[in-house]
Amino acid sequence: MPKRIDQFAIGIDIGGTGTKYGLVNHRGDISHRGSDLRTNEYDRVEHFVDDLHRVLSPLIDTVGIEKIRGIGVGAPNGNVYSGTIEYAPNLPWTGIIPLAKLVSDKFELPCSLTNDANAAAVGEMMYGAARGMRDFIMITLGTGVGSGIVANGQLIYGHDGFAGELGHTIIRPGGREHAGTGALGSLESYASATGITLTAKEMLQQSNKASLLRNHDPDDIDSKLVYDCAKQGDEIAQEVYRYTGQILGEALANFIMFSSPEAIILFGGVIKAGKMIIEPTKEHMEKNLLSIFRDKVKLVLSELKEADAAILGASALVWEMKVND
Amino acid sequence: MPKRIDQFAIGIDIGGTGTKYGLVNHRGDISHRGSDLRTNEYDRVEHFVDDLHRVLSPLIDTVGIEKIRGIGVGAPNGNVYSGTIEYAPNLPWTGIIPLAKLVSDKFELPCSLTNDANAAAVGEMMYGAARGMRDFIMITLGTGVGSGIVANGQLIYGHDGFAGELGHTIIRPGGREHAGTGALGSLESYASATGITLTAKEMLQQSNKASLLRNHDPDDIDSKLVYDCAKQGDEIAQEVYRYTGQILGEALANFIMFSSPEAIILFGGVIKAGKMIIEPTKEHMEKNLLSIFRDKVKLVLSELKEADAAILGASALVWEMKVND
Repeated sequence: MPKRIDQFAIGIDIGGTGTKYGLVNHRGDISHRGSDLRTNEYDRVEHFVDDLHRVLSPLIDTVGIEKIRGIGVGAPNGNVYSGTIEYAPNLPWTGIIPLAKLVSDKFELPCSLTNDANAAAVGEMMYGAARGMRDFIMITLGTGVGSGIVANGQLIYGHDGFAGELGHTIIRPGGREHAGTGALGSLESYASATGITLTAKEMLQQSNKASLLRNHDPDDIDSKLVYDCAKQGDEIAQEVYRYTGQILGEALANFIMFSSPEAIILFGGVIKAGKMIIEPTKEHMEKNLLSIFRDKVKLVLSELKEADAAILGASALVWEMKVND
Repeated sequence: MPKRIDQFAIGIDIGGTGTKYGLVNHRGDISHRGSDLRTNEYDRVEHFVDDLHRVLSPLIDTVGIEKIRGIGVGAPNGNVYSGTIEYAPNLPWTGIIPLAKLVSDKFELPCSLTNDANAAAVGEMMYGAARGMRDFIMITLGTGVGSGIVANGQLIYGHDGFAGELGHTIIRPGGREHAGTGALGSLESYASATGITLTAKEMLQQSNKASLLRNHDPDDIDSKLVYDCAKQGDEIAQEVYRYTGQILGEALANFIMFSSPEAIILFGGVIKAGKMIIEPTKEHMEKNLLSIFRDKVKLVLSELKEADAAILGASALVWEMKVND
């Protein structure tokens, strides 16, 4: 569906803690935004949708509801086919939540929903580093590891709407146990902020090497501290990033041999470490590729501001909607 | 493009040793076939194409060239975008071979080319176990491990035409070295006929357990012998299949978390072992899946006869061609 230049989309990003939203024009400019809803304070999703309507109504009124094309929502375990959030472990609402229908009924606007990582990939394709690309993979490295896969210019949703759970692929069989899933050796256990913290604690235990990290109570070590220490030249902290990059690079090589993308786009808090993590990632990605894929796939950082990406990605779903004009 | 019921397609499967071909109608019936070309006897691809034309001309004449919609070719390292075979290690022609153009010029018919595993997936979608499916993965377990991936009803070719090299994904980091690529721990090193032979030899070395396999010179052990011994109840031979199935199952779990297919379709000589390999594969596939994917994905065997599948798959490319009517 072509974007009409006088139209707007609402983008909503539902996170486990807070919910962010914004009014977005066809160029991807967020003209109004808010982040004052605390997701985890709503025991009932109906009350959450009521308050979402309350905070968004003034934004809608600034342009007029007839100018709003629709509402796009990114949410954990969001399913594009059913418009439902299914068994999201980090949200206060259990079971299967028909969120798109609740929003659509309340706002009297069409609503499309997908998971947060897919929304980010759509945002990147429409407004970010993947503009013009028909084949790419977006990997979000935050508290967890999310992914959105685009092939032939389309988001890969799979048979049931749940494609693209690359954070849960096993990259070290028999390896570190994932606290949430119980899986051994999944990518998320290593290449997330949580994984970086665990790797640092393991490395401190397994060596006697001096480290700035030893100045802190082990319970206080987190990925932020590892980053700060690595920046100051701490060898163990830097080794944590090399190890994380190695595992990430090996995983990316596998993903490339699956869908042969033009680029892999990295996003999220973990990549703030810049070349400390990108260099080993690139090295081990290339090393594990079949020769026909080598030196071909761009490894790029997201061009979207982190605070905006989720809203933009969610809003971008609206332009992809099949709505009768 | 719709299939016209009075039209035919030519399917050609170029293998490292022999080349098979057939005349196929719109229902997937092979009315004429041949397999008398020895690929490896042609130093020059031009001579190969000349002889291909010579053997196919009588078939074309039986229906008339005006009834032939086109020619589909499956070949190792075949690239659908360029119509070229690129650096195929098992073919006698080195470098980049413009095969589709050579065939098209010689036959004066449109020609489409892809790799053999992708062709098999198209054949399965059009005539076999994947009829009606929009999301599936086909894995060919033969001398090597090939794959073709369909998502949103389309074959995934990727940015450069080489997507779907799942046999080369690393499933045991630091594991067995692949004789061809040098990679450590790739799926093909384990789940192919070659891998089964290597696993059997390793297991015989690492234990003193009695085995029928010990009645043979180690150099004479191959996957056929392992199969025969396993069928006779030989414990080591059966353990070889359990181990192979475990590794294959773990790999399939990773693939499912990538594209969330409706089914995985297995094809090729290795699956003749039936439940000796399918049961451990299924067990370890389910065990390694994130819960949202469990007990959802069908693990099915190809419905195409092995001798026909490659020809059917290649011919099916013709019906997908964008040709001016």
